[in-house]
Amino acid sequence: MVGTRNPLNLGAAARAMSNFGARHLCVVNPWQVAFREARSAVGAGELLRSAKEFPTVAEAVADCSLVVGTTSVGRRELQHPLKRLEEGAKLIRRRLRTSRVALLFGSEKVGLSNQDLSHCHWLLRIPTREEHGSMNLGQSVAVCLYELVRDGRARTAGEKKQLAASADLERITELLFESLLASGYVKPRTADVTREKLRRLVRRMKIDVDDAALLLGMTRQIAWKLHQAKSS
Amino acid sequence: MVGTRNPLNLGAAARAMSNFGARHLCVVNPWQVAFREARSAVGAGELLRSAKEFPTVAEAVADCSLVVGTTSVGRRELQHPLKRLEEGAKLIRRRLRTSRVALLFGSEKVGLSNQDLSHCHWLLRIPTREEHGSMNLGQSVAVCLYELVRDGRARTAGEKKQLAASADLERITELLFESLLASGYVKPRTADVTREKLRRLVRRMKIDVDDAALLLGMTRQIAWKLHQAKSS
Repeated sequence: MVGTRNPLNLGAAARAMSNFGARHLCVVNPWQVAFREARSAVGAGELLRSAKEFPTVAEAVADCSLVVGTTSVGRRELQHPLKRLEEGAKLIRRRLRTSRVALLFGSEKVGLSNQDLSHCHWLLRIPTREEHGSMNLGQSVAVCLYELVRDGRARTAGEKKQLAASADLERITELLFESLLASGYVKPRTADVTREKLRRLVRRMKIDVDDAALLLGMTRQIAWKLHQAKSS
Repeated sequence: MVGTRNPLNLGAAARAMSNFGARHLCVVNPWQVAFREARSAVGAGELLRSAKEFPTVAEAVADCSLVVGTTSVGRRELQHPLKRLEEGAKLIRRRLRTSRVALLFGSEKVGLSNQDLSHCHWLLRIPTREEHGSMNLGQSVAVCLYELVRDGRARTAGEKKQLAASADLERITELLFESLLASGYVKPRTADVTREKLRRLVRRMKIDVDDAALLLGMTRQIAWKLHQAKSS
């Protein structure tokens, strides 16, 4: 974080780092107030306490083999290769396997200076809209770190729900049909067609085993009640 | 945004929406102060002014064919299918082609209530660390919207730099070699080996056309100066 002014942004950056497992926060020439007041970010106190302070970018990135600057572009003629976050993150991840990488974020007002940028190997851009490219600092840190940990092949383990067997679906269909018949919804002349419509409707809903048991109880009760009403 | 308390978070949500091109902000039962004070988010004033206020989730999502809740999990037994953001975003994007989708974010303190969640088709989780799963509200909005616009196949247009031709590399090599020879770095006995080392070094650096011109000028000047010094 280079020249950060707002303590809330420093805190937000630290919190996002903690959320996504980045550990080494370095602040370069921060506004002293910002640095002192940030020490309260939810769940990221430890990370802020162990943050290192440096007077220059050169000293902050000294142990990194790749230095990447962030920019919203626009105002400045860029002297560096510019990569979209999706593409740049792949290169960063690859490099992280063997060495340290620095990701630089400039100040809220002016971003990174040309001098800051001259320490960078290339620049990164979050794909925001052209009409409103400039992101909030804390949010842009979160988005960059998310992209670094995201896993495109991730599938949530969560058990695929087991769908109900046809026998149960048919029992539900039949109970619903009885209820509709008893309530006068079904016209005798089109009863067969209605039953088939109902059968297809029940199949389309992708009812799982547990829901089938629930629906069976409900439809049974309703059918029973309608039957009672008719005979009384 | 359901029950948001902090105006900064409402503002941050609006700003991220503007950054990533989401247009319809709905606030459900927000703390009135938060809603009034948020109307100053950088670059997102229009979006905040046109935000719609609803007393209940049901009314806010009435025109959506898919309702997705966000959660950091942990505290609550989930009654819903839970998907990681990477996976869920694909489903949301697909649905967005044909109809509206609601993405619900709960309050800072307690998230979405079970009643709020009962309106959801499934839940979304940002892949944060288990040890510190809870994200800042504004940051989580930014990360979710980023994932929706991200393009895994995006390649930055930026011209691939044109690499220097071998003739230029060889001239640089030769000028460097002359300078090293004149400065006494090269031992006559190993001159040939050194020249080959140097040649490989220069090729490894992937010098582009412009940099080759720059380096040619520099090495020529140094070689000339060393030559001057020797003859004087």
